[in-house]
Amino acid sequence: MYIGRFVVVAPDFGAYRVSSRSFPNRQIVARDGTLTVAPTPDAPENDNPYVSYNCVREGGDGVVVGNGSHVDPIAEKLDLGYPARDALASSLLALDYEKDDYDTPRVAGVVGEESYVGIVRRDALLVESVSEPTLVATYEEDEPTAIDFDGDDPDAIAQDAYDLDYEHAVCAAGVTYGGGDVDVGFYNGA
Amino acid sequence: MYIGRFVVVAPDFGAYRVSSRSFPNRQIVARDGTLTVAPTPDAPENDNPYVSYNCVREGGDGVVVGNGSHVDPIAEKLDLGYPARDALASSLLALDYEKDDYDTPRVAGVVGEESYVGIVRRDALLVESVSEPTLVATYEEDEPTAIDFDGDDPDAIAQDAYDLDYEHAVCAAGVTYGGGDVDVGFYNGA
Amino acid sequence: MYIGRFVVVAPDFGAYRVSSRSFPNRQIVARDGTLTVAPTPDAPENDNPYVSYNCVREGGDGVVVGNGSHVDPIAEKLDLGYPARDALASSLLALDYEKDDYDTPRVAGVVGEESYVGIVRRDALLVESVSEPTLVATYEEDEPTAIDFDGDDPDAIAQDAYDLDYEHAVCAAGVTYGGGDVDVGFYNGA
Amino acid sequence: MYIGRFVVVAPDFGAYRVSSRSFPNRQIVARDGTLTVAPTPDAPENDNPYVSYNCVREGGDGVVVGNGSHVDPIAEKLDLGYPARDALASSLLALDYEKDDYDTPRVAGVVGEESYVGIVRRDALLVESVSEPTLVATYEEDEPTAIDFDGDDPDAIAQDAYDLDYEHAVCAAGVTYGGGDVDVGFYNGA
Repeated sequence: MYIGRFVVVAPDFGAYRVSSRSFPNRQIVARDGTLTVAPTPDAPENDNPYVSYNCVREGGDGVVVGNGSHVDPIAEKLDLGYPARDALASSLLALDYEKDDYDTPRVAGVVGEESYVGIVRRDALLVESVSEPTLVATYEEDEPTAIDFDGDDPDAIAQDAYDLDYEHAVCAAGVTYGGGDVDVGFYNGA
Repeated sequence: MYIGRFVVVAPDFGAYRVSSRSFPNRQIVARDGTLTVAPTPDAPENDNPYVSYNCVREGGDGVVVGNGSHVDPIAEKLDLGYPARDALASSLLALDYEKDDYDTPRVAGVVGEESYVGIVRRDALLVESVSEPTLVATYEEDEPTAIDFDGDDPDAIAQDAYDLDYEHAVCAAGVTYGGGDVDVGFYNGA
Repeated sequence: MYIGRFVVVAPDFGAYRVSSRSFPNRQIVARDGTLTVAPTPDAPENDNPYVSYNCVREGGDGVVVGNGSHVDPIAEKLDLGYPARDALASSLLALDYEKDDYDTPRVAGVVGEESYVGIVRRDALLVESVSEPTLVATYEEDEPTAIDFDGDDPDAIAQDAYDLDYEHAVCAAGVTYGGGDVDVGFYNGA
Repeated sequence: MYIGRFVVVAPDFGAYRVSSRSFPNRQIVARDGTLTVAPTPDAPENDNPYVSYNCVREGGDGVVVGNGSHVDPIAEKLDLGYPARDALASSLLALDYEKDDYDTPRVAGVVGEESYVGIVRRDALLVESVSEPTLVATYEEDEPTAIDFDGDDPDAIAQDAYDLDYEHAVCAAGVTYGGGDVDVGFYNGA
């Protein structure tokens, strides 16, 4: 099954995976603790505004994962003191689903003292706390659903997310939160 | 089971029911097409800010149902041109759950060209379109769930909502939408 | 000149005054540190939804003043960790101007570590930090303007606000903030 | 004087000008009626996220001008039916000032049936309707102020904005609105 981009959010860890049919020539790169999805050096030129973005960024005392430019304002609202629920809801509602051919939803999660998952679709805004590993994806699995997924090492979480049995894996990131510390990792395939 | 206040939202109709242990001496009264939950003449004095409110009010070309003061800004945002999703999400997020002993959620629905249901809890904001009759309540049933419920007459819908097998029914309202027309009714018990 | 309800916000103190032609039979009453505008015992019955509300309420480590039901969500968003700017802007935008015969604006202020003043009108949303005593009113003086006003005692601030040379004074409240402490006072006329 | 990026918003026309010390190698390019600020072919590589964005885009029955990525959600909220005031306020509040070395504000305007100007700063959110040509800039002139400026031709408006006596002009755009029609033009210097 092809479910597009997705996040997994658990109380103490999270993951984000790029799955893509149209833009497979992408990778995750790290800059100052922020992880960015960007074209590989050999990718064909394109001017799609949704191809490159920060997918992991620290905010408040936690960390944000997501599939687009909403990751930045969510992290910045956490820095200002917003609770995770409100940072997710206000940013997702303002930036809304992507205005592409698929009305692609925005998905995101916050892993921290309180961990939340969220999605904005053309027909819904869903933000809720998580008490177990929870997946939400841009297509098909587009409401938060429990998933069997464990993890305590960011690099291993990234690879496990990459290896999940959904089509067209491109790259993946993993994050952990514990005792106020955030760690991040990623995997761009073999 | 006691589930507190609840809404039922379907594509063409909706209902709102007051169930209450603490403030049973209430009734629905109509003023200019708006339905208001208010104390009965014999109710003991109280200064709880959540006891009296508009529970049904027209907005845009549809109609709003809900369990508190958020019904007004939702209707007013619809009048300004907001889509139902955005009117619900922004008003619920701003007014948030009630700061009482139970962190009582706010629930609401819009019945119109596109019908939506919503709830804000201390740990979630959920707003989504409905394609079948959907219930959401302040307690227990606090995420939108399909329910077997039919209706095309506002008064009958109100009475059916009142008669649903949940404890402590106090009063109920029913609304219908069709061809741009809104009709409302209510039932205060026998 | 008649300018309706108004707030004065300074870095360390604030005031709110009710001026009213239509509903002069009102007073401020204190309940658990919150100040409420309410009808006097001899006031004629009315069902105007904008007549009674909390006009002063602590929130976060500061205190909120304002002319309506928006005071509550502003205080509650401060409690959740929102900065003053965001608590004011999101609550004023959501609740919007009053839908009465005058499109009466909502005015508000936060006095605390950072003090802000705000107004939402049918044609504007203005929220800004204050570095000197600043007045904003529902009518005429409906954008924030510096005013000559001093104060360090809440009761005296309330009386000074009451005595300002604007028509139809009804009652007034004063607040101070210093070293993390909030104090409040009010004056209902002689 | 150097005032950075700025918009001019009038009831029937608007302008946006890039003034820049750090990134002067930029130009405006047109794509399907949207105007984009982008590096010139000879610009040095940079990864600043605020350098390239849509500065003019149609939305609802009007047109949006602005200095960053907020132009897109403002236009999209207008398309959904939001009034200009609300589209500006909610998008500016969500995306907030730029997290660069200058806390650069976001400025924007909507020219349409009702024309509005707005700015979000670290210490303010100001959105208001305009009844005369009004300028707001990222630095110095960072609250809306009347300006002597006329225009009815988009290309001439762009050139006039470029020629205004503020330092470091890079490129400029002009827009007009009349009878439901939007026209746009731009000027990249001689």
